[in-house]
Amino acid sequence: MNTKRVAILGSTGSIGSQTLDVISQSDGFSVCALAAGSNGKLLAEQAKQFNPQYVALSNDEAAGDIQDQLPDGTELLTGPDAMTEAVRKSSPDIVLVGVVGTSGLAPTLAAIECGARLAIANKETLVTAGAIVIPAATAAGVEILPVDSEHSAIFQCLQAGNRDEVRRIVITASGGALRDWPESRLATAGVQDALQHPTWKMGQKITIDSATLMNKALEIVEAHWLFGLPAEQIDVVIHPESIIHSYVEFRDGSVIAQMGQPDMTLPIAYALSYPKRPARPSVPLNLPKLGSLTFKPCDGRFAQAVHLGFEAIRRGSLAGTILNAANETAVEAFLAEKISFGRIVPLVAEVLKLVPIQTDEKITLDAIAQADKFAREQVAERMEDT
Amino acid sequence: MNTKRVAILGSTGSIGSQTLDVISQSDGFSVCALAAGSNGKLLAEQAKQFNPQYVALSNDEAAGDIQDQLPDGTELLTGPDAMTEAVRKSSPDIVLVGVVGTSGLAPTLAAIECGARLAIANKETLVTAGAIVIPAATAAGVEILPVDSEHSAIFQCLQAGNRDEVRRIVITASGGALRDWPESRLATAGVQDALQHPTWKMGQKITIDSATLMNKALEIVEAHWLFGLPAEQIDVVIHPESIIHSYVEFRDGSVIAQMGQPDMTLPIAYALSYPKRPARPSVPLNLPKLGSLTFKPCDGRFAQAVHLGFEAIRRGSLAGTILNAANETAVEAFLAEKISFGRIVPLVAEVLKLVPIQTDEKITLDAIAQADKFAREQVAERMEDT
Repeated sequence: MNTKRVAILGSTGSIGSQTLDVISQSDGFSVCALAAGSNGKLLAEQAKQFNPQYVALSNDEAAGDIQDQLPDGTELLTGPDAMTEAVRKSSPDIVLVGVVGTSGLAPTLAAIECGARLAIANKETLVTAGAIVIPAATAAGVEILPVDSEHSAIFQCLQAGNRDEVRRIVITASGGALRDWPESRLATAGVQDALQHPTWKMGQKITIDSATLMNKALEIVEAHWLFGLPAEQIDVVIHPESIIHSYVEFRDGSVIAQMGQPDMTLPIAYALSYPKRPARPSVPLNLPKLGSLTFKPCDGRFAQAVHLGFEAIRRGSLAGTILNAANETAVEAFLAEKISFGRIVPLVAEVLKLVPIQTDEKITLDAIAQADKFAREQVAERMEDT
Repeated sequence: MNTKRVAILGSTGSIGSQTLDVISQSDGFSVCALAAGSNGKLLAEQAKQFNPQYVALSNDEAAGDIQDQLPDGTELLTGPDAMTEAVRKSSPDIVLVGVVGTSGLAPTLAAIECGARLAIANKETLVTAGAIVIPAATAAGVEILPVDSEHSAIFQCLQAGNRDEVRRIVITASGGALRDWPESRLATAGVQDALQHPTWKMGQKITIDSATLMNKALEIVEAHWLFGLPAEQIDVVIHPESIIHSYVEFRDGSVIAQMGQPDMTLPIAYALSYPKRPARPSVPLNLPKLGSLTFKPCDGRFAQAVHLGFEAIRRGSLAGTILNAANETAVEAFLAEKISFGRIVPLVAEVLKLVPIQTDEKITLDAIAQADKFAREQVAERMEDT
């Protein structure tokens, strides 16, 4: 068996660390590059364990004293382009994109140029720049394996049929930390309330997105790009137990679902090993012990944020970029206690409305950067009015 | 697109009629042979609609006046070997085995000789003679597509991984008509009580098997043969809503389930069209409308019959034949009100115990016929004692 060389972007984050756990428990993988933003200490520890050819640290200042702690044969790259450079220089077989935000875009495009399989855990890359990434990957014959639990579920379910036989895909939503709150209290939920996710442990930004259900809006746009489906073929269902991670209804009426305990190491391992499924230690799913799985329509207050995902697909053009940037800015403001919880979704909705309906313009990296900036400014302006 | 020529064995029964419905609504299929037991009238009507080359009627006496009613170009075959002859003479691309009982065995072997795809809706064929049918199909490179909803579900789920990556398969059970009865009353349930199936409309024999849960014992043995799995890798879970038709847990911990409204035309259409999934009219699965799916362990009184399926696999040899024949005889006796409901499973268990533990003997059709006869005699003897 050939060893697959893996580059991990965002190795010190939640997904990055779990990817290293999966690799250390698996046969057939080696780490050729590790890249992080500013956590030089943890990056150096990881380098000692996995002996990559390259480590990259985006933050120059954080790079100060890690050089001494790197193993022999590991080269340090620093600065804003270090992550992309690490991909180019190590020419990996697989690039796992686990960085948060739009910083994943340039290294993702570099990975496509190398012909590496892309394992994407970063929603923003596709939501913001799907119009560039997907055509580039298709042209280069590069496989994209989603690491999000919902999209991994759909990808797995799609193995049971052909892409052109899909009637619709259904993304499940736990409903987030505030799902049982009465609507009247919701607007004034505090930061700590919104950070109590019922079923998944994740970073702060994603946990807030889960409470607003903006994560589903982003996932809808991501699914649109990953699976080539229009808004009409994507649905969302509230499923508080998060056991069915998503499902696919084929045009013959058959529904294929992927289930499991909430555990990100499964989609990570699948993305690395696909089409194989190596044996992994895991708690077997015990449905009788769970007793029941419940489902609710995604309507009422749940639908307000989710609707913005469909709206972004229909508007096309740079609407995904605007959706993502406006949401990032609003969530930052909420975490900094500058706006109320109830203001996040309306702010994003107001800014999304400013996007003109889809034109045939060619989308460039420059246009994306400008739209991103525009959305952030628009949210900031509106915050002052709040 | 080449038209696939289909022979339907048991065309006047529930599965046979539904197969003709599917074919009349689909492109790409023609009917080359129709075979029935004794319902000559319906057989002639079907022949007029589908113009097969051959019709076969097993019961000579019933053949009397159907000759005149057949369309030009349709040849009538009669007698106990007519079904097998119809398969041989029409050399179909697909043979759907929808007959009940062991009469499906000889035509199944004829279909394998022709190299036709086998769509098997008849549990008895594999439960009784899996040791002959499976090696013959494998040697001939013949595909077997299960039409049972549970086995079709598992077959579909297996598309999402490799056969050697399966940790276990889980067959779901509605629990049957008497699932909510207290155990104390169960032994004395009447024929009409046991015939009220909660979720599926089926024939009498199968509905009683569903009430005793002997259908799960038979399905376990069928799954053993179809998917090459030992007893340890097969589980049963009680799922009263019958929406998850069965599921597969892979060795990486991922669980793939197939779901849908109870509707036999889906597995029939899938077995005919696999690996394609042509569009079919169907009611979309609405999980929020259902609200919840519930699960219970298959223990206590549910386990008594189910256990016999595992026992039959472990005993090997002719235990499947004995299990099936003993159960058929006991169910007939119950339907004739000769024994109580509570006596069915214990009678089968007693007779199954008489099977010697697996030896290396080669299983022949003769040995199967003898074991079948032996089991029926043993049940009859014990009924007299009852």
